[in-house]
Amino acid sequence: MNNIKNYIETHKDRFINELIELLKIPSISADSAYKNDVLKTAEAVKFSLEKAGCDTVEVCETDGYPIVYGEKEIDTNLPTVLVYGHYDVQPPDPLDLWHSPPFEPIIKETEKHPDGAIFARGACDDKGQMYMHVKAMEFMTSTNQLPCNVKFMIEGEEEVGSANLATFVKNNREKLKNDVILISDTGMIAKETPSITTGLRGLSYVEVEVTGPNRDLHSGLYGGAVANPINVLTKMIASLHDENNHITIPGFYDKVEDLSKEERAEMAKAPFNLENYKNALDIEAVYGETGYTTNERNSIRPTLDVNGIWGGYIGEGAKTVIASKAYAKISMRLVPNQDWQDVTQLFKAHFESIAPKGVKVKVTPHHGGQGYVTPIDSIGYQAASKAYQDTFGKTPIPQRSGGSIPIVSLFEQELKSKTILMGFGLDSDAIHSPNEHFGVWNYLKGIETIPYFYKYFTQLSS
Amino acid sequence: MNNIKNYIETHKDRFINELIELLKIPSISADSAYKNDVLKTAEAVKFSLEKAGCDTVEVCETDGYPIVYGEKEIDTNLPTVLVYGHYDVQPPDPLDLWHSPPFEPIIKETEKHPDGAIFARGACDDKGQMYMHVKAMEFMTSTNQLPCNVKFMIEGEEEVGSANLATFVKNNREKLKNDVILISDTGMIAKETPSITTGLRGLSYVEVEVTGPNRDLHSGLYGGAVANPINVLTKMIASLHDENNHITIPGFYDKVEDLSKEERAEMAKAPFNLENYKNALDIEAVYGETGYTTNERNSIRPTLDVNGIWGGYIGEGAKTVIASKAYAKISMRLVPNQDWQDVTQLFKAHFESIAPKGVKVKVTPHHGGQGYVTPIDSIGYQAASKAYQDTFGKTPIPQRSGGSIPIVSLFEQELKSKTILMGFGLDSDAIHSPNEHFGVWNYLKGIETIPYFYKYFTQLSS
Repeated sequence: MNNIKNYIETHKDRFINELIELLKIPSISADSAYKNDVLKTAEAVKFSLEKAGCDTVEVCETDGYPIVYGEKEIDTNLPTVLVYGHYDVQPPDPLDLWHSPPFEPIIKETEKHPDGAIFARGACDDKGQMYMHVKAMEFMTSTNQLPCNVKFMIEGEEEVGSANLATFVKNNREKLKNDVILISDTGMIAKETPSITTGLRGLSYVEVEVTGPNRDLHSGLYGGAVANPINVLTKMIASLHDENNHITIPGFYDKVEDLSKEERAEMAKAPFNLENYKNALDIEAVYGETGYTTNERNSIRPTLDVNGIWGGYIGEGAKTVIASKAYAKISMRLVPNQDWQDVTQLFKAHFESIAPKGVKVKVTPHHGGQGYVTPIDSIGYQAASKAYQDTFGKTPIPQRSGGSIPIVSLFEQELKSKTILMGFGLDSDAIHSPNEHFGVWNYLKGIETIPYFYKYFTQLSS
Repeated sequence: MNNIKNYIETHKDRFINELIELLKIPSISADSAYKNDVLKTAEAVKFSLEKAGCDTVEVCETDGYPIVYGEKEIDTNLPTVLVYGHYDVQPPDPLDLWHSPPFEPIIKETEKHPDGAIFARGACDDKGQMYMHVKAMEFMTSTNQLPCNVKFMIEGEEEVGSANLATFVKNNREKLKNDVILISDTGMIAKETPSITTGLRGLSYVEVEVTGPNRDLHSGLYGGAVANPINVLTKMIASLHDENNHITIPGFYDKVEDLSKEERAEMAKAPFNLENYKNALDIEAVYGETGYTTNERNSIRPTLDVNGIWGGYIGEGAKTVIASKAYAKISMRLVPNQDWQDVTQLFKAHFESIAPKGVKVKVTPHHGGQGYVTPIDSIGYQAASKAYQDTFGKTPIPQRSGGSIPIVSLFEQELKSKTILMGFGLDSDAIHSPNEHFGVWNYLKGIETIPYFYKYFTQLSS
C-alpha cells in the first residue's frame, strides 16, 4: 500500500474532525426519544460512503432502523470483502459520571493514549471503528489501490439486538454475497500487543417482573404479612448462583464444552496482570466462578449478570412502602454450542418455577444471539495477521472475547462466509461506560492496517 | 355534647371543603422540591386553629419544617388535652397508578364508603384525621362546650422521621405540659367495629449502597470476572431472612418478648377473614414468618422489608452493563423493648460483615423510633372507650397496630403522659399508596366522637 503513511499524515485532522461530527449525533437506538438522531446518523453514514468512493449507496428501510448499504465492484473475478459495522450507540447514562458531555466530543491525553483520545459515546463502539473502514476505503479508491470488490453493511440496531438484520440478510443473500466479512467492533490486548478476536460469547437478555399485592402498601400495616416483591426478587436472583458462582438453572451447562488443558495453557500466555486489573477497577478482589481464571471467566465461561434492577421508592428521603412490583434486566453471556433461544427458555421455565406463592412472575425475552469461534488457519485470518505484521511489526495474538456480536453466527449461517474481527480499541476505552473514548493513535493505526488486509486477502485468494 | 349532630349536619359541606383546600397543597416533606408547599401548609394550619378558637397560635421554627402550636386555656384547674398530628404527606409516586391527581381531591363513592370518600394524598394520613380535631375544637368553642384546656402540636416532618420534634419537645416541656395526648393517625378495624390502637411498632430505616468497580462496565468484557454490585446486593438482602422468614441479623430478636397464649388468643378474636384479605390484595397466598398468623406478623412481630431498590440500567430497552453501584432502602419494624438505635447498629455491623471482597458497602441510617404499648385501664383509654360507645353504640376493641408513630414513646418519656390513639381510617384507605382516600362518613364521625372524649376525660379526671 504505497504512500499510506503520508496520506494519513496529510489528512489526519480531517479524518478526526469527520469522526467528531458523526459522534455529535446522539444515535441511541435503545431510547425512542432519539429516533430522529438515529435516522440522521444513517444519512450521514450514507454520505460518507459516497464520498469514500462507493458506486451505489442506499439507506435500506427495515421494520426498525435502516441499514446503510454501499458497494464498489471493480472486477467480478476478484474476491469481495463485506464490511459490517453499526452507527447506533449505547445510552450514555449515568450522565453525572461523564467528565464531558457524551455527545460533545473532546480530545484529551490519557496515560494509555499520550497522543490523545476522542471522548464521546460511540467513539470506539462502534462509530470510530466503523469509520476507520470508510477512511481506509477513501485511501484505496483515491489512490487507485483498491485490490478487490467491497461491500458495506452498516446497521443501526446493534446495541438493541439487531432485531431486523436477520430478515435483511436473508432477503439479500445475493446482494451481500462475499468471500469474507470484516468487522471492527472488538478490542485488542494492548497497543504493543495486537490481537485478533477468534471467539465471541452468545447472549440472552431478559426482563423480569415480580408482582405482589395489587397496589403499593404501607410497610407498617402490611410488613411481614405479605410477600414483598423486592425481597422476593432478591431471593430469586440470589438463588441463580450457588456458593461457587455456578449458575443453578437446570440444563444451563449441558452444551458448554470445557476447553482442553492445552487450550487453557495457550490462553494463559496472553499478557495479564491481576494487580493492574484490580487497580484499574479499584477493587480489592476479583470475583467469579470457582476453578477458572479471570480471563477464562470472561471469555470461555457462560455468565449471568443483572444489568438493572428497580422497584419501590427510589427518590430522595424515606418512604415506608411495600411496592406492588419489582423489576430486573438480566443478561446471560453464552459460549459456543449454547443456543441462546434454548437458554432463554431454560431461564424462563426455571425463574417462573422458583417464584413463591403470593407473587406473580413475568419473564420477557429482550434479544439474544449465538456465540462464535473462528479458525486461525483461514485465508481471512492469515491476511489479517500479515496486515498487523506490516503495520505493528508483530504477529497478532488470537484472543477469545467475552463480548457478543450476535450477527456473526447469523452471517456464517446465511452468507456461508467467515468473519474476521480486527479490533483496535482497548479494554480501558470504557465502551458502554461513562467517558467512552478511542485513542487517536488507534484510530489512525486502524485506517493504516485495513488496506493491507485487502491486499493480502486478495493475494491469498488468487 | 348537645346539638353536635345538628351542628355537623349544618356545617358538613364547609368541613369537607376546608379539608379539600388543605389537601390541594402538596406538602411532601421527603422531597425538598416541595419546600414552599410544606411551609404554606403550616400557615394554613395556623389559620385554621385561630378560626377554631385557639387563643394563641404560633408557627414554631425548627432546623427542619416548622411545628404549628396552638392552645386555649380556660381554667388551670381543669385537665389539659394535647392534640398531636402532622400536616406533611408521603410522596405520591408511582403517579401512574393514581386514578385522579393526588393533589386534586375528588369525592367518589366506593364499596366501603357508600357516602363517598375524599381521594387525595394525605386525605387520611394525616391531614384528614388531624383536621377532625380542628373542627371538633371549632364545635366546642363556638357552642361554649369546651370542658377543659386544649393544646395543639401539628408537625411537618412525621413522614421523614420527625427529626426535629424531639428537640422541640425537650425545649418546651412546660409549654406542652398536659394530662393526656390525643392522636388520630391510625385506623380502626371497620366502620361497624371501632377500635383503639394500644400498640405501635418501632422503626429503623436505613439506606445501603454497594460499590463494585469504579465505573460501569461492559457486561460482555467483564461479566463473570468481577463482583456485580447488583448481584451481590440481591445475595446480601436475600440472606437477611432464613427459610422460615426469620431475620438472620445476630441479636435482632434478643429483646423481642413473645406474647402469652392468652394474649394471642385475645388477639385472635379480632374479626379477620383471610380470603377477603387475599382478595383485596389480589394475592394467591399470604407470606411471612413461620409460626405466626397474619395479624400477628404485622403487629406483634418485628419485620424487615426492602422499600426501594435500584441500580444499573432501568430505562427503556436493554443495556449490557455491569453497574458500579447498587442501592436499597430497607426498613425494620420493631416491637416494644427493641431499641431502634441498637437494632440499627446490629443491622449495620451485620450488613457490612456479609459483604464479599470485591465490593465496598455503606450503610446510612435514615431515621427510626421506639415501639409503644399503652394500658387499657388508664383514664384516657376509658374516656375514649365511652366516647365511641356514645357515637358508635359499641365498645371499641383494643388493637395492636403494625405501624409506627415514633414520637409516641418520646412523648411518654419527655412529657410523662400517656397517648390515646383514636383512629378513624380503614386499612383499605390506601395510605402511603396511590389513591389514598378517607371516608366522608369516617371524617364526620371523628368530628362527632372527639368532643365526647374531652367530656369524659374531664369527668373521669375530676
